[in-house]
Parts: sequence; structure tokens; C-alpha cells
Amino acid sequence: MVRSSLPSQRHAELNSQVSESAIRREAHSHLPPSCCQANARHCAHHAKTYSTQQPPLQNHEIPRSHLRPFPTFRATPVLLATGASHLAAFPPRFRALQHCYNNKLPPPPLWVGMLGLVPSSSSYLLYRRLAAVRTFSAAAGSVNMAARSALDEVTDSGAFDRSPSTFRNFVSRDSSARFPAVPGRYHLYVSYACPWASRCLAYLKLKGLDNAISFTSVKPIFERTRETDDHLGWVFPATGDEDPGADPDPFNGVKTVRELYEIASTSYTGKPTVPVLWDKQLKTVVNNESSEIIRMFNSEFNEIAENPGLDLNPPHLQASIDEVNDLVYDAINNGVYKCGFAKKQEPYDEAVRNLYEALDKCEEILSKQRYMCGNQLTEADIRLFVTLIRFDEVYAVHFKCNKKLLREYPNLFNYTKDIYQIPGISSTVNMEHIRKHYYGSHPSINPYRIVPAGPNIDYNATHDREKYSL
Amino acid sequence: MVRSSLPSQRHAELNSQVSESAIRREAHSHLPPSCCQANARHCAHHAKTYSTQQPPLQNHEIPRSHLRPFPTFRATPVLLATGASHLAAFPPRFRALQHCYNNKLPPPPLWVGMLGLVPSSSSYLLYRRLAAVRTFSAAAGSVNMAARSALDEVTDSGAFDRSPSTFRNFVSRDSSARFPAVPGRYHLYVSYACPWASRCLAYLKLKGLDNAISFTSVKPIFERTRETDDHLGWVFPATGDEDPGADPDPFNGVKTVRELYEIASTSYTGKPTVPVLWDKQLKTVVNNESSEIIRMFNSEFNEIAENPGLDLNPPHLQASIDEVNDLVYDAINNGVYKCGFAKKQEPYDEAVRNLYEALDKCEEILSKQRYMCGNQLTEADIRLFVTLIRFDEVYAVHFKCNKKLLREYPNLFNYTKDIYQIPGISSTVNMEHIRKHYYGSHPSINPYRIVPAGPNIDYNATHDREKYSL
Repeated sequence: MVRSSLPSQRHAELNSQVSESAIRREAHSHLPPSCCQANARHCAHHAKTYSTQQPPLQNHEIPRSHLRPFPTFRATPVLLATGASHLAAFPPRFRALQHCYNNKLPPPPLWVGMLGLVPSSSSYLLYRRLAAVRTFSAAAGSVNMAARSALDEVTDSGAFDRSPSTFRNFVSRDSSARFPAVPGRYHLYVSYACPWASRCLAYLKLKGLDNAISFTSVKPIFERTRETDDHLGWVFPATGDEDPGADPDPFNGVKTVRELYEIASTSYTGKPTVPVLWDKQLKTVVNNESSEIIRMFNSEFNEIAENPGLDLNPPHLQASIDEVNDLVYDAINNGVYKCGFAKKQEPYDEAVRNLYEALDKCEEILSKQRYMCGNQLTEADIRLFVTLIRFDEVYAVHFKCNKKLLREYPNLFNYTKDIYQIPGISSTVNMEHIRKHYYGSHPSINPYRIVPAGPNIDYNATHDREKYSL
Repeated sequence: MVRSSLPSQRHAELNSQVSESAIRREAHSHLPPSCCQANARHCAHHAKTYSTQQPPLQNHEIPRSHLRPFPTFRATPVLLATGASHLAAFPPRFRALQHCYNNKLPPPPLWVGMLGLVPSSSSYLLYRRLAAVRTFSAAAGSVNMAARSALDEVTDSGAFDRSPSTFRNFVSRDSSARFPAVPGRYHLYVSYACPWASRCLAYLKLKGLDNAISFTSVKPIFERTRETDDHLGWVFPATGDEDPGADPDPFNGVKTVRELYEIASTSYTGKPTVPVLWDKQLKTVVNNESSEIIRMFNSEFNEIAENPGLDLNPPHLQASIDEVNDLVYDAINNGVYKCGFAKKQEPYDEAVRNLYEALDKCEEILSKQRYMCGNQLTEADIRLFVTLIRFDEVYAVHFKCNKKLLREYPNLFNYTKDIYQIPGISSTVNMEHIRKHYYGSHPSINPYRIVPAGPNIDYNATHDREKYSL
């Protein structure tokens, strides 16, 4: 349960770049019911407290040796600054958070949003990663890119540790909401290469939303996004001919995704990632967290969706979906990146062990039923699919996931073909973009950017999965 | 046909670090018959001419722009220096070679050896690579390593181009030869990781020569070989415990293979490669070209071999063996390196296309007979095997040979198991050394030296190859 007993004098020390209304909107976010209530109260209460404007943070790096787990959160620990000598140099807001930490209190909900704390399936808050603290500490006072790309997100121990997305607003079916679900207002920026963006694209197709929500794919290979620094990131082509599938930005005329983020927030210094759910009216990023975008697409746009009856997160399966997502996200979706971006042998060994344990579990599950949560397609399947479809072409070589190939797992392989053959899905898989992106965008692990010949698997080949639906 | 019409005044300009007797021995090398005769005459003739000692070469790099194909040689062109302005700066021996070039003459046989010209199956001489010119030009006057490791051997076009081995003496069954085939005199230095060295080791086992010729394996991972430069190469462990399988040098007490070469030749600046067939009596390298060492082991040591009746290069199959070797060497044995060390996409694409065309051909051949030249094991099989056994564990990932795995070729895969299960062969395959070496020794293509989990294939599993011998 989330407790809300922060002393008010401490609250007064907390500052925010997020407006009061933004905090209120935060309370509407898609938290599981039990958590949502507590959080809504929390937010309403704190909205008043946080509204006092204070000077912006200075760029402030917290040494890793000064961080330790935040004790009130389960699973991946919350890591926060500690150590009295260092504390003196912290901006006031860190001291407030320090207070929560010392008193075993949960952080206030504003921090939940700012630090990338995300709801988990059992109504506890789960803080994904340390890097968010760094990102946040650098956010206000500096124009440096704090976490430039996923490749930079490696800890001192050599392990890859993904930072959370930072724009977390929600489109709502409520027409009076700040971001109402109306046709033509939103645009989805994706890369065909990116598995996180591809799951949003899959939802656009499955829900029949591609007429209501337009989309644009960037070019597959990272390029320099600015002459004055060395950031490499997603860019738009000058014309639609450069990389078939990629198109120029149709609304803002920008050349890079980074610029989109800078339109949305003049002080944005996080990773300029895709997907971006863009509000054409307010010219801002609604949300850049794919797990939230797909939930919005699933439930909030049904009045304008061509396939409103499809519920990929039905109430009776939510616990099962969350459970599969927990397994798949860390060990598989993100696990392949942990294998590929590890800079030392031990984190690689751990990641690859977890990856194959999880794949073996999935193979076992899929030996008994058509999909991961039964014989009905759910969110859990789409989230798993986007990694599996990239496995043999990219992860097996580029990320050193070579213990066993997808095509050597009969159930997983046929399952991947099964999902690929759902109408609309194959159009979201652009293998040319996928291959070009990975091999071409990570010179630190593929210095000469050679794109391997690849197995070129035919995912339209027959599969045996119907047998579970008979 | 090899022509030998060099004007004698030009011959007089040629110098050699190779003694007259060495040139005579060169004439005994295993050239195909038609070529051997011409070459023997050539050598006998030139031996007198070359014996005049001249000052050693200065270290002299020939700019690539001054090189063009040598017109009288087929296949891979001979590239030699040209350009009058640059010619003036050449040492005399280059001008002599220049004369041959200008007059469309073949280079004299001494140069054939020194530049790594090797006999091809159709009695023409085939010059393997440009880098040898550079290596040679630097050989005499400098202590710099001209071609430090295979990774350095990439042309301006980004293609990998292996330089030839430089010690090419032959052990002979003739007891009056300089290197007579007597027991206990020779020692084979290998790396279990190296396919070229492993084929020699396979011959030691197959011919029952491991009591007559001792051997030592170096450590699997390249290390710095000298404090005063940055060469990375093969080193011996301090004790036998460091890397099981690797042992300290038992005869010369050296720490590196580089030092062995320097004992053999004070001016050696080529690659300090394995295998090294070492003469303990004369303390020199007899030969470091594995294709020649295996032919010596096959034919010259029969009086002391435990299995003298095994002829892996029998006369009636020699043409067939040469044909298979031609296919396998360039496209497969060396082809995987061309894939892995390519620094540009085009050479990779070409190498991987040739590799899989050749593998497909082998698969087809092996669908009809047990071995590559019929139902009898030959040299061609051992040469192919050493690459195949490394394919799925290393080349598929590290060298980007991912179009199809060995285990996806039923005939090649079973054939590999078949050869692996020949008594003695499995002891020559140390997969731990193989994996550690490749992933750990080429930071330019695997910067963090992560060793993948690997498929860990059981090559002792049953195979179906006996069906061809029934």
C-alpha cells in the first residue's frame, strides 16, 4: 500500500517543473485500481504543496557510491542518494526525497512521475532504474544530453540498464480531458526498427486506428542530430525515397526526433526515443512510453476505432497478462539488449541465462496453448512478438543470443509465424529497417557496421498453431 | 607456362637473404609436376645469380597508388610497384622485378618464394596478395612488424587479404637432407584455437606421429608480445594451469611465438603465426605453412609413423584433392575470415556469397558420398573439417556467417560429426580455446570481448555417414 504521511514542511521543499494541472493529470494515469485511488489522493494533496516555484536544479551528478536501494519498493530496487557528506550538496528536492527514504516512506507521486516510477501489477510502485535520478538531476539546468542512447546506459559493472521514458500523459475517452481521444489529432512517430515502437504500430493496425491516428517512420540508422554535439539518434529522411518506409516529418518539418522533443519541452535532455505519441494541436509529446501507448490504443479510442470490440487487455486476463509481461519484459524484451550491450562477461552471462530460461518457459507455455495467456491473443503476445521477430536476424548475431535460435524452438517459432500472419501485422515488420538499424547504429559493438547476410526466414510459411483453437 | 628469360644483368641485381642451398631446397617444394620442372630449372639457374650478397633492404612502404596488376598471372593478380618517379627510390631488387613486370615476364622463382607466390592447380603461379610486397620490402632493414596479425591484412577496399607464410623448408625422408625425417628432432607449436594449426595436429594423430613429433599449444587469447610495441600475438603460459591445454615452451623457454621466429631469423618481421614446425637441433623454423606441413607429415615420416599406410594424398586422388582444396581454401577456410574481417559491406557481401555457394556445393557432394573426394578420407576432408567444427560456435556470430548454420546442412553437419569421431580427432578440438581465442583476440570486431553462450553442439552424437561405406 502506498503511504502518504510526508510531513508538510518537507513537502514545501519539493519543487517541480510540472505544473499543478500536470500533477492532477498524473492522478488519472492508468494505475491498477487499488493503487490509483491512493495515488489520486496523493496527487490532489501534493498538487498544492508543489506549486511553489523554486529555482531550477543545477546539473548534478550523483556518484554511484552514494546510492542505495529505496527500501519500500519491491522488485527492482529504488536507488536514491545517501551519505551525509554528499547530501549537503544536494538541491532541496533531493533532501525531501532523502527524508522519505530515511523514514521508509514512498516518494510522493510527483516524484513517481518525474523519476519514472511505474505501477506494477500488485499495486506497489516499481522504480525501474537509477539512471532516471541522474537524468532528472541534469534535466533543468543543463542542455547536455544526460542519457543519449541506450548504448550509454551501462553501469559500472558493465550491465545494460535502460532508463525510463519521461512523457507520461494519457489520452482519455473523456472528451473533457486535456488529451481527448478524437480522430486526426494525434500522430505516432515510430521507427520500423524499434521493437517498442513496433508494438504501438501493431496496435494501430489491430484496433483499426490507422485512419484515426496517422504515423511516420524515421530512417533506420542513427545519425548525428546536431552539428554542435555528438549525439546520434533517429532522423527523418529529406524525401520518401531515401529509405523506403521512412518519410519526412509531415507536421513539424523537423529533421530529427530530438527536435520533436525540444518542441514539446525546451528543457528536455532525456533520450529522444520512439515511439512518440504526438499531439498535433498542442504540439507536444503526449506519451513516449510504449507500454502506456498500447493501453491507450486498446481502451481509449474505441469510439473511433474500426475494431473497437478487440480487447487485448480484458479484465479476466489482466493478472495473467501482467505476469507474462513481468517475465517477458525483463528477461526477453529488454534481456536481449542486456546481452548485447553488456560490456563485461558477467552481466552478459547473467542476461543470457535469464533470457534462455524465459524463452524455455515461453516454449513450455506455448506447447499447451496457442497464445501466452490462453487461446486468446492479448497484449502479452504483441509484446513478446516484437522481440521474437527480430531474434534470428539480429539478436542471434548482434546481441550474441546464440545459444539457441528462435527457429530451433518449434512452438515459439510457429507462434511467431502465427502472429506475423494476423492481418495487418506483417506491415509493421520492416526487416530491412530492422537489419539496417541494429547493425548500422551501434558502432561500439559492430565497428564496421557490416550487415550480415541473415537467414531471411519466411514468416509467411505454414504453422501449426490453429490446432489449439479447434 | 612459366617463362625463364630474365636478362642475366637484371638477375645480378637481385639479392636474397635466402642462401643458395635454401634456393635449391625451394626447388624441391611440392609444386604440381608440370610447374615443378620449370621451377627446378629456374631455381638451379638463379641460385648462382642470387648468391651475391648485397646490402639489406631498407624499410620501404610502396604507396598503393603505385601498384598495378602483374599481367602474366592468372586469378588473383600480382600487384607490383610502378610509376617512374617512385621507382627511383626503390631498392635494386624492386627494379629487377619491375623489369619483369614491364616485359610481361614472370618473376624469378626466388621472388616466387619471397613474395609468397604459390603454385596453383593449373601449373601457373598464383600470387596471393599485395601485402607480401610490403612485408618483404620491410623485411630486412627494420624491426617493425609489417603485418602484425590477420586483422591488419585489410586492403583499401575493406577486404581481408591473408599474407603468405614465409618459412617454407621441407623435411625429407632422405636421411642426407638438411631436415631429415627422424624421430624426436621436430616440435610442432600450435594453438588449439587456430584452424591452420589444428589440421597439422590432426595429421599428427592420424598418422601416429605424436610420439615422434612432440607438440605444444599456446594460450588461446592474443597478448602483448613486447613491452616496447603494441603487437598482439600468441603467447605461452607461465605454467600448465593457466589455460588447460596450453603449456610453457619446453625447449626454448620463450614466452611468445614471436620470440621463436626471432630465434630462427634475427630479421623476421612477418606475422608470428602458428603452426610452427620447429627443428630442435638447428633451432629454427622449418616451415610455418600448414598446407605444406601436412603434406610432409603425410609422406615424409612414414618410416617413423605408427600409421604409415594411411595416405591422405594418394596419387589417384591428387587432382580431385587439389580441386576441392581450391574450392574450400578460398571460399571456406579463408572465406570465413574474409567475412569476419571485412571492413566494408561489399567485400563482406562477396565473401559471404562465395562462402555459401561453396558450402552448398560441399553439401551437394556430400549427399552422394561419404567424403569430399569419394568414400575415402583425404587431405581435403581434414582441411574442410577444421573450419566446419568452428562454424556454429564462432564464425556464425563473430564472423557474421549467419545465412545458414552448419547444423542446418544435414550432410555437412553429419560429415563433421563423422570426422570428429575418427579416433584422435576429437583430442585436436579444444572448443574452450577456440571460443576464447576468437571472441577474445579481435577487439576491433568484438570490442568488449564477450564470449557468447554458444550452442554447445555435441559432435559425438550419432551421424548417418556410414551408409556411404556399406
